[in-house]
Amino acid sequence: MAKTKNAITPTREENYPEWYQSILKAADLAEHSPVRGCMVIKPWGYALWENIQKRLDAKFKETGHQNAYFPLFIPLSFLEKEAEHVEGFAKECAVVTHHRLEKGKDGKLVPAGELEEPLIVRPTSEMIIGHSFAKWVESYRDLPLLINQWCNVVRWEMRTRMFLRTAEFLWQEGHTAHATREEAELETKTMLRVYSDFARQYLAIPVISGEKTESERFPGAVHTYCIEAMMQDRKALQAGTSHFLGQNFARSCGIEFQSVSGEREYAWTTSWGVTTRLIGALIMVHSDDDGLVLPPKIAPSHVVLIPIIHNADTKEAVMGYVNQLAQELRSCIYDGEGLKVVVDGRDLRGGEKSWSWIKKGVPLRIEIGLREIEAAQLGLMRRDRPHKEVISCPRDQLKERILRTLEEMQNQLLEKATSFRDVHTRKIDRKEEFIEFFQGKDEEISGGFALCHWNGDPSFEKEVKETLNVTIRCIPDHLPLEAGKCIFSGEKSSRRVLFAKSY
Amino acid sequence: MAKTKNAITPTREENYPEWYQSILKAADLAEHSPVRGCMVIKPWGYALWENIQKRLDAKFKETGHQNAYFPLFIPLSFLEKEAEHVEGFAKECAVVTHHRLEKGKDGKLVPAGELEEPLIVRPTSEMIIGHSFAKWVESYRDLPLLINQWCNVVRWEMRTRMFLRTAEFLWQEGHTAHATREEAELETKTMLRVYSDFARQYLAIPVISGEKTESERFPGAVHTYCIEAMMQDRKALQAGTSHFLGQNFARSCGIEFQSVSGEREYAWTTSWGVTTRLIGALIMVHSDDDGLVLPPKIAPSHVVLIPIIHNADTKEAVMGYVNQLAQELRSCIYDGEGLKVVVDGRDLRGGEKSWSWIKKGVPLRIEIGLREIEAAQLGLMRRDRPHKEVISCPRDQLKERILRTLEEMQNQLLEKATSFRDVHTRKIDRKEEFIEFFQGKDEEISGGFALCHWNGDPSFEKEVKETLNVTIRCIPDHLPLEAGKCIFSGEKSSRRVLFAKSY
Repeated sequence: MAKTKNAITPTREENYPEWYQSILKAADLAEHSPVRGCMVIKPWGYALWENIQKRLDAKFKETGHQNAYFPLFIPLSFLEKEAEHVEGFAKECAVVTHHRLEKGKDGKLVPAGELEEPLIVRPTSEMIIGHSFAKWVESYRDLPLLINQWCNVVRWEMRTRMFLRTAEFLWQEGHTAHATREEAELETKTMLRVYSDFARQYLAIPVISGEKTESERFPGAVHTYCIEAMMQDRKALQAGTSHFLGQNFARSCGIEFQSVSGEREYAWTTSWGVTTRLIGALIMVHSDDDGLVLPPKIAPSHVVLIPIIHNADTKEAVMGYVNQLAQELRSCIYDGEGLKVVVDGRDLRGGEKSWSWIKKGVPLRIEIGLREIEAAQLGLMRRDRPHKEVISCPRDQLKERILRTLEEMQNQLLEKATSFRDVHTRKIDRKEEFIEFFQGKDEEISGGFALCHWNGDPSFEKEVKETLNVTIRCIPDHLPLEAGKCIFSGEKSSRRVLFAKSY
Repeated sequence: MAKTKNAITPTREENYPEWYQSILKAADLAEHSPVRGCMVIKPWGYALWENIQKRLDAKFKETGHQNAYFPLFIPLSFLEKEAEHVEGFAKECAVVTHHRLEKGKDGKLVPAGELEEPLIVRPTSEMIIGHSFAKWVESYRDLPLLINQWCNVVRWEMRTRMFLRTAEFLWQEGHTAHATREEAELETKTMLRVYSDFARQYLAIPVISGEKTESERFPGAVHTYCIEAMMQDRKALQAGTSHFLGQNFARSCGIEFQSVSGEREYAWTTSWGVTTRLIGALIMVHSDDDGLVLPPKIAPSHVVLIPIIHNADTKEAVMGYVNQLAQELRSCIYDGEGLKVVVDGRDLRGGEKSWSWIKKGVPLRIEIGLREIEAAQLGLMRRDRPHKEVISCPRDQLKERILRTLEEMQNQLLEKATSFRDVHTRKIDRKEEFIEFFQGKDEEISGGFALCHWNGDPSFEKEVKETLNVTIRCIPDHLPLEAGKCIFSGEKSSRRVLFAKSY
C-alpha cells in the first residue's frame, strides 16, 4: 500500500518523542525559551490552558472552594519545617539570594544586596499557605477551610520536555484544612474524582485513578492519589494528584483549632493539583500524524470557515456570505457558551489554509466558494476523519448538524482513547510474561498497562524500575479485591496494581 | 452633633493611611505575609481581582489581543540590552543565583548549584517577550502582533503597602508590535482608553488620562500615558499605564520585518499594564468609615440574605424561604451574568452578621424573619446609604427592584467620586496659591488636583517634588489647548498639566 504523505515528520511510529515536538511546532502551541527548562506558551497553547482553567475553576467553586493568592517566595526556614517535604524539593529549587544589581569591577552588572535569608521560588505552597491557615483557624467553626490558587511554580528539573516537565510550569494547587480525618480523606477523594471527571468529560481522556505506593508519595503526605492516562506510545502519564496530608503539615505549620469539646487539636489537611502537563496529555492521547486533534469541548475554536475565492470579482460576495454565516453560528450555544468560529480571510491558497487548521486541530472545517453558496449546500470536514471526507449539509440545517457533529466527535474521541487503552492493558500473572510485555520486540503486542498481583514489597518495585524502567503507577480504585499471587514473590496478594513505563 | 460609632478605627479623617489598613482587615481582603513586602490576597480580595480580570480580559480579546505565557525568569544579559530599561529596574529586582539547596557544615541548608548566569525574576517582560517577537515576526504579514499576559511580577520595593506597592504583585502586561509608528501610537491610546473606560464603567472610578512628563516615563519608552484617579485623601493614584516604545525595544531585541516594499525594518512596539493596585484604588475611592464599599459591577456578591431566626421552631420555615429566594434571585441576569447571592446561615446574631457584610461592602442586604415572610414584604438595605435605612419592597417586585437599585448604586458611586474629584480640582495660576493649596492647613479646602500652566522645564518639576512632594501626574488629554503663563517661570505655555501629591 502506498504511504500517504503526512503533515507531521516524523510520524508517531517512526519516532514518538520527535513526533511530539513536531506537533508542538506544527500546531503553534509552545516553544523553547532562552531560559533553561522554561517554555513560552504560545496563544493557541495558552487558549487550551484557559479552557482547562475555566472548566476546572467552575468545578472547584461548585465544590465549595475559593481562590486566593499567596507569595511566590518561601523563606528557606519555612521549607525546612517539614523534614520529608524539604528533602523532596531541595535538589531542584530556584534560590533568590539578592535583591538588586550593581555595576561590578568590569562595569558589568552583578547581583548585590544579599538577603539575610535566601528565598525559594515556590515549588509548591504547603508551607507558605500553612502559615496563613495557622492564623485563619482558631475554632472548629473556621473549618473546613477550602482554598485554591492558580499560579506558576518552579522545580529545577534537569531533563525537561515542553508541557510534560518544565522548570517553570502553571498549575492550580488546592489546600484544605478539616476538623476530622474522615472529612479530609473524603476531600482528597472528592478532588481526585473532580479531576478524573474533568479529564473524561472535557479532555476525552479516560484516566485510571488510584493510590500511589509509598515510593511515589508526595514528600510529607500520608496518602497520595493520582489519575493516570495512557499515551499513544502506551506509556503512562500522571495527569493529576491529590494528597491526604494527615496532621503532618498542620503540625509543622501550627494549624490548630479548638474542637467542639474545647480541646486544642491539629487540623487534617489535603492538597491537590493539576498542571500545564494536562496539555501534554491532551496532545499525546488524541493527535495523529497530521497534527493536533482536539476534543471539541476544549478546543479554542470549534469551526473554521475557509472562503474559497478564485478571482477578485467574487471576493466580496463570498466574504459577505462567510462573515454573515460566522455571526449566525456564533449565536449557537455549544456546551453552555457561544460556538467559537474563526474566519480564515488570509491571502493564501485554500489548501494551505485548510492544512494549517488541520495541524492546529480545529474540530470542523467548512470551505465556502461560489458553488457552495449557489447550491445552499455546505461541506463539513471533521478533523478526526480522513481530510477529504466531506459531510454535505443543506445551509438551513447547518447549525444543528454542527452541534450534533461536535457531540459525536467528543464522544468518539473518548471511545477511541478508551478502546486504545483497553487493548493495551493486560492482566499478567507470571513474571516472564511481565518481562516479555515490557521488553518484547513485537511492537504490535508489547507494552502498555500491566495489571499484576504484588505483595507490597518495595524491593520488587525498585527492581523493575531499574531493570525495565517500569513503575507502579497506582493501585487502581476500580479493580475489585481479588485473591492472587504476587508475580515476583509468589506470596499471597489481595489485589492487582498497575505497572507501566511512564513520563 | 453626637458622633456616630463607626466600624472602622481610625476613621478616614483621623488617620487615612491607618484607616486603609483597617479596611483591608475588616473586609478580609489581604494580609501581610512572612515574606518581606509580599502580601497574601485573601478570598474576598482575590474575588475582586478575578472580576477585574474577567472584564478586562474580555475587552482585550474584543480589541484583538491573545493571551500567552512567557518565562518568570529573565537572563541578566537580556535585561542589559536596553540601557535605560535596565537602569530603571536594577535597583529593585530579585536575583536567582542557585538552583538547589544542600546541607552546609552546620547541617543547615544553604544555596548550592550556582548558575552560570544569574536570572532576574521578571519586573516586567519587555526583554523576554521581545526575544520571542523577534522570532515570530518575519514579514509585514505577521504584524500586528497583539499579545497579553496575566502573571506575577517582582519589584523589590523598599516601602511597601498592601495592594498599592508590594514586592510581588499580579498584573497583566500587553505587548504589541506593529509595522508603522502610527499604528503603534494608536494602539497605545486605544489601550489607555480601554483602561479608562473600564475604570469608569466597572470600578466607578473617574480617571483622568494623559501623557506622563519625561521624568515619569517608563524606562526605555518614547511616550508613557497613564490614568490617574483621586483618592479620598485627595492624593492621586496612577491606576494604569500604556507605553509607546518607538523602535527602542525592537532594536535591542531584534524585532525586524520585511516591509511591503521588501526592506528590512524595525517594528514599532507598545506595552501596557494594570495591576492589583486597582484594588487599592477601588478601596480608597469608595469606602467609608464602616468598611469597604463596592460598585455592584465588581462586587463578588451582590446581595446577602440574612435569615433572622428567633427560636428553633421557626428555623426551618425561615431557612426554607431564604434558600428558595436565593435560588430564584440567582436566575436574574445582572450585567450579563447571574446575580450573585449569599445566604448567611451562620449561627450568629443578626446584627453581627449584618455588620460583617457592611464591612465587606456587599451592595445589598436583606434581613428575613417570620414577620417579613408573613407580610410578603422585604426590606432592602443599601451599602451606600445609612445602615438603618430600609427600602420596603413587596416580595413579587423584589427582582426588578434589586436590579434597578444595583444600577442606581453603580451610577451614584461614579457620580459621587466624580463630584468629589471635581470639588477638589482647581485651576491655579499663581505660584503662591499653588503652595498654599498643597501646604495649606485648612483641611476643608487644601489639597487635591491642581491644573496649572507649566513651561516644560524639568527643574520646576524637581523643585515642587522636593519642596512640596507634589508631582506632575500627567498632561491631561481632556483639557483644551489654552494660552497662559507658566506659574513658575512666567513663560508662555499652551496647556495646563495636572499636579498632585500621589501614591
